[in-house]
Amino acid sequence: MPVKDILKPGKKFQITGMLRVETENERFFGPGRLQLLENIEKTGSISKAAKEMGMSYKKAWEMIQSMNGQTLRPLVETHAGGEKGGGTIVTKEGKLLMESFKKLYSDFQISLEEKLNNFLEFGN
Amino acid sequence: MPVKDILKPGKKFQITGMLRVETENERFFGPGRLQLLENIEKTGSISKAAKEMGMSYKKAWEMIQSMNGQTLRPLVETHAGGEKGGGTIVTKEGKLLMESFKKLYSDFQISLEEKLNNFLEFGN
Repeated sequence: MPVKDILKPGKKFQITGMLRVETENERFFGPGRLQLLENIEKTGSISKAAKEMGMSYKKAWEMIQSMNGQTLRPLVETHAGGEKGGGTIVTKEGKLLMESFKKLYSDFQISLEEKLNNFLEFGN
Repeated sequence: MPVKDILKPGKKFQITGMLRVETENERFFGPGRLQLLENIEKTGSISKAAKEMGMSYKKAWEMIQSMNGQTLRPLVETHAGGEKGGGTIVTKEGKLLMESFKKLYSDFQISLEEKLNNFLEFGN
């Protein structure tokens, strides 16, 4: 008997999930860090980016330090005011990581439908 | 330039993840519930099973009620003492769900290696 036949009808079952990239003892990249970088791109400011997520500046700063400590070049850079007005930017390395993680995540989200089907048909 | 070339050498990057099965507004099955059912099979007791996970009896009982409320037949049944001595068992429906979830999870764990490779090669 497959799993689907022991579930109550009328309920919409779904599989949800999470992925993150880590090294041995430290997080490297995940949905929260992606969101933080997206907010920095949008606002040009770590404090504004953090605020949009209901996160403290300290926590956001620590996340950036953690990421920057695991890459050869920083993912986020803060420039003092000048011709361009200064502010915080996501570097091209940061953008590359954002794109790679978004691809990873969207492929993963797409795969959840098939995973659900396999889960429900198990035992058939 | 691929992601792997912007990461510090000497660090071992890995992808970790989590999956769970839900309905619209309620968890149905996940790693914690699997563990609880495994512990019930092993100990024949909800309270002993909960204790092994550092979980309260109340929490374990609520998890079981939640699962049982989403299936046509209960996944866990408690029988009063008798010839067989009573105790709590995982039903064949419960065992089926455990097996299906374990398959889902092991396939997922295996896929993480390929996901990591895709993530690191992105931009190549």
